Amino acid sequence: MTSPIRRVGLVAKPGLTEASALLGELGAWLDSRGIEPCFEAATAQLARAPLPGRTCEAADLGRDEQLIIVLGGDGTLLGTAGRLATGGYDVPVVAVNFGSLGFLTEVRVTEVFETLAQVLAGTAHEERRMMLESIVRRADGVQVRRISLNDVVITKGALSRMIDLVASADGQLIARFKADGLIVASPTGSTAYNLSAGGPIVHPGVDALVLTPIAPHTLTNRPVVLPAATALEIVVSGEAARSSLEETYVTFDGQIGDILGPDDSVRIHRAPYALRLLKPDSHAYFQVLRQKLRWAER
Amino acid sequence: MTSPIRRVGLVAKPGLTEASALLGELGAWLDSRGIEPCFEAATAQLARAPLPGRTCEAADLGRDEQLIIVLGGDGTLLGTAGRLATGGYDVPVVAVNFGSLGFLTEVRVTEVFETLAQVLAGTAHEERRMMLESIVRRADGVQVRRISLNDVVITKGALSRMIDLVASADGQLIARFKADGLIVASPTGSTAYNLSAGGPIVHPGVDALVLTPIAPHTLTNRPVVLPAATALEIVVSGEAARSSLEETYVTFDGQIGDILGPDDSVRIHRAPYALRLLKPDSHAYFQVLRQKLRWAER
Amino acid sequence: MTSPIRRVGLVAKPGLTEASALLGELGAWLDSRGIEPCFEAATAQLARAPLPGRTCEAADLGRDEQLIIVLGGDGTLLGTAGRLATGGYDVPVVAVNFGSLGFLTEVRVTEVFETLAQVLAGTAHEERRMMLESIVRRADGVQVRRISLNDVVITKGALSRMIDLVASADGQLIARFKADGLIVASPTGSTAYNLSAGGPIVHPGVDALVLTPIAPHTLTNRPVVLPAATALEIVVSGEAARSSLEETYVTFDGQIGDILGPDDSVRIHRAPYALRLLKPDSHAYFQVLRQKLRWAER
Amino acid sequence: MTSPIRRVGLVAKPGLTEASALLGELGAWLDSRGIEPCFEAATAQLARAPLPGRTCEAADLGRDEQLIIVLGGDGTLLGTAGRLATGGYDVPVVAVNFGSLGFLTEVRVTEVFETLAQVLAGTAHEERRMMLESIVRRADGVQVRRISLNDVVITKGALSRMIDLVASADGQLIARFKADGLIVASPTGSTAYNLSAGGPIVHPGVDALVLTPIAPHTLTNRPVVLPAATALEIVVSGEAARSSLEETYVTFDGQIGDILGPDDSVRIHRAPYALRLLKPDSHAYFQVLRQKLRWAER
Repeated sequence: MTSPIRRVGLVAKPGLTEASALLGELGAWLDSRGIEPCFEAATAQLARAPLPGRTCEAADLGRDEQLIIVLGGDGTLLGTAGRLATGGYDVPVVAVNFGSLGFLTEVRVTEVFETLAQVLAGTAHEERRMMLESIVRRADGVQVRRISLNDVVITKGALSRMIDLVASADGQLIARFKADGLIVASPTGSTAYNLSAGGPIVHPGVDALVLTPIAPHTLTNRPVVLPAATALEIVVSGEAARSSLEETYVTFDGQIGDILGPDDSVRIHRAPYALRLLKPDSHAYFQVLRQKLRWAER
Repeated sequence: MTSPIRRVGLVAKPGLTEASALLGELGAWLDSRGIEPCFEAATAQLARAPLPGRTCEAADLGRDEQLIIVLGGDGTLLGTAGRLATGGYDVPVVAVNFGSLGFLTEVRVTEVFETLAQVLAGTAHEERRMMLESIVRRADGVQVRRISLNDVVITKGALSRMIDLVASADGQLIARFKADGLIVASPTGSTAYNLSAGGPIVHPGVDALVLTPIAPHTLTNRPVVLPAATALEIVVSGEAARSSLEETYVTFDGQIGDILGPDDSVRIHRAPYALRLLKPDSHAYFQVLRQKLRWAER
Repeated sequence: MTSPIRRVGLVAKPGLTEASALLGELGAWLDSRGIEPCFEAATAQLARAPLPGRTCEAADLGRDEQLIIVLGGDGTLLGTAGRLATGGYDVPVVAVNFGSLGFLTEVRVTEVFETLAQVLAGTAHEERRMMLESIVRRADGVQVRRISLNDVVITKGALSRMIDLVASADGQLIARFKADGLIVASPTGSTAYNLSAGGPIVHPGVDALVLTPIAPHTLTNRPVVLPAATALEIVVSGEAARSSLEETYVTFDGQIGDILGPDDSVRIHRAPYALRLLKPDSHAYFQVLRQKLRWAER
Repeated sequence: MTSPIRRVGLVAKPGLTEASALLGELGAWLDSRGIEPCFEAATAQLARAPLPGRTCEAADLGRDEQLIIVLGGDGTLLGTAGRLATGGYDVPVVAVNFGSLGFLTEVRVTEVFETLAQVLAGTAHEERRMMLESIVRRADGVQVRRISLNDVVITKGALSRMIDLVASADGQLIARFKADGLIVASPTGSTAYNLSAGGPIVHPGVDALVLTPIAPHTLTNRPVVLPAATALEIVVSGEAARSSLEETYVTFDGQIGDILGPDDSVRIHRAPYALRLLKPDSHAYFQVLRQKLRWAER
């Protein structure tokens, strides 16, 4: 927020024709203030009239921009957050809600220009959301790095009966989980899949990870909230996986999936990058929660 | 139990070499009482010495037998129960436990001959376990009939985000379920997968089905216990399935799986056949439950 | 339903002045058809104009009437159902909803006369709701009989730490429960307190009881659905109660409370009387459930 | 840990005669090292032989001591932790387990002298456990301050139907809770009552509070993990409390209880004192958890 804003990246949900007009207005608004808009290539095609500024690739957004505007729902923001963190671009985001009620995309269409004015004036509220960095390490030595905002989910295949996972924290055994799967969620992700599986809501101000089993075979397996600094490791139990031919998958924010074999592991820790969300209001968390979950209603 | 026992079928878990000696002893015991043993083909090969009687195909067991002896764990019994019901063979079963603590295979190896003596004397306790009959009906008109003892489970593919199912009872809408899946369990199956997903334990004496969502996206979706006479129908929501390309699977007792497409449905009702389990003791239900679930322990 | 209706009892929620006009209209409607209305004493005082028929005591309602009309919410109906069963009066009830959305009082004010016309014509739908009969048996031999429609709840005092209960079914130990309390619910009561404590929804067509622990100290203690014919006994563990001076209470439909001491017990079984509810429509169960629980909503 | 240890306080569970011999041995061990033991008055009476050092009041323990040794179970430690924090005494504790498996009193009797030697050498591991400070504020202005280590629990009376509470965080409404009660637990308390009520396990290294409803009437009310720095306020809804005459109680570590009236509130925040536990081993957390919860077992 300290560097002056000279260029702003804009990315919309693919096919979001409702955003056509707003894209043009945003381009003009920025251009008139001497700020160069840079439209992601597919986003630029949504506009009906010529846009000011230029177009760029999604993967490059954040390299030369000091602000990103996302138009869409939580899914669009998840993708952008992942690309920014993967690129190592420490750039704040204004997320404009075009989906159904989003937990993350809190800026309403009617608030866009007011919020941007606050951003330029340096008075917008910035909320930092912890991200997760995972290393998928195969038994043969191959390693893959993945970034996610919400969660890392390890699950069984649809026709498998269960998976057998061994979880440890900083080298200390937590427990062995025989279950449909295991969710490692950030506070942001605690209100997503984690909640469906029976996990707790974790306020984004808590520096923690949540470990929640999905349909555990052992009734005493309960969700555990761990310090964010924990080096978490989840290993596919080799013996069980080999003998039963169970299939195991890992997904990141529900968007990318890898297959895991016997003795493969996933190491998960807090990413060195946080998603920086800019908003007009700092106090909306519980209100969004109540609306989304219909809390306090019967 | 009324017809005199002239022929007894024997089937063991594949590869259960621990049962070799007992198979021989059972053959001799039956033969000496003028009862013809009939060994399932693969089971016969487990014996080390020549067996009396003859061998038969698994699918035929029950056609000409008045009693079936199963040696193995719950999985072996599930398979046999399914084949008996599929064949329409209304034959009682003595299930000898060779697995870890089984909910169903309650007869211990040390009790086998005592139990068989009671069966021949007509003093053994018979417990009837309700079974489920399902009709998988595809949008193109093809129908498949499936039998299960524990449950019918409809689940999403490992990389899908959720499935969208519409459940109705006797033509009346129950609810729409957005979830990882949906379990329809018999009382017998209530202590299997249903329990992992948060469903209640249902005593086998209750004439009911349990409908339990797996990781439901709607927090208010709770397990529902329905009359066993309910004609339950679960339809894969066509709109959702087509737009999202989500994969949907249905499995029966965790052993057979079918893929479901948009608008495909599964109709589930109480099967006209029950599994008839013969045991020496009629009062073991809660004791098994406590041991298996470690109830009353901390 | 077979005996012709000559006299109808009417009872309203205490202080329900909104029902004043309807009470007069109901009196006139019945009177004009040669049916004598009989108003419960406090209910009669709610009317602003003189009423036809006569007044009677709440406890006598049902003795000489062939139908009872209840105006109020679920609480009013629970009280009436208890009194009818206590008196041994096997009389059907039309329950008119004046409360917030009731699970039981399903007849809307606008449907009252249409429903009554169906009742007189013998075409109304009758739904039988199982009731519970309890015998509270003190260690000193004193016994008290209680009737309830929803549930029997055994709980600790507010300042006690937990209670220690031993539950058995037909003389067989179910389990020992160390918990805040234990709920025994009928299917009707399954959507009341039982649901808050994590118990399943049980359709009223299922002939069963639900046993649900409240905040159990043992994580493996799960709700259990038992056959309605079960003779259930719950004993306050004497040793624990004596040593810790914990207080234990039992309530019936949340309305009557008894204190339980060490070794006191409560025996619970299906009452010989059912609540007979008359309604215009036979298919509302899941609809009421969805509205009340906001099922299928997010 | 920095100040040299010249005086050590010793307190045992009331009536713990099993500790008689150890008390004498501890006195001699300390005395021989030039450290003055100070026995809490009732504890001193447990010893069979004359003890070295002197006796003091429980409330004074910690004022002039540089170490406290607690012999007993978690309950004894909870009491001592509360008194230390109430007195403002920032003194470390060695907790020797004489109860059943304790979460907190991890030092075994056989490890006592080894642990004390490490404490004197400055090599023992110190674990800081967050404590809670509460201000009970009555509608008439009276305020009471309470300290607890595990939890603050607000509950209904045994014969009340529910309580109606409004919870806020830093002045922002969290939600309204209609429930049997509400638990605010520290990470240490997360494995106590919170776990019975369905709350998550929170590792003591997470700087957080857990807010868990007990038997909530609204199915969407889920446990929430909040930053430890949150100023939490829970108000007894005046309207509901007045109209229904419901009784409301608040207890601290299950040991002290206050009655709450309409509009009374409890403000809860992290206490300025932490319990300082000294142990020989730093890595026992998940092991204790697995043993206590029988994790990874079936």
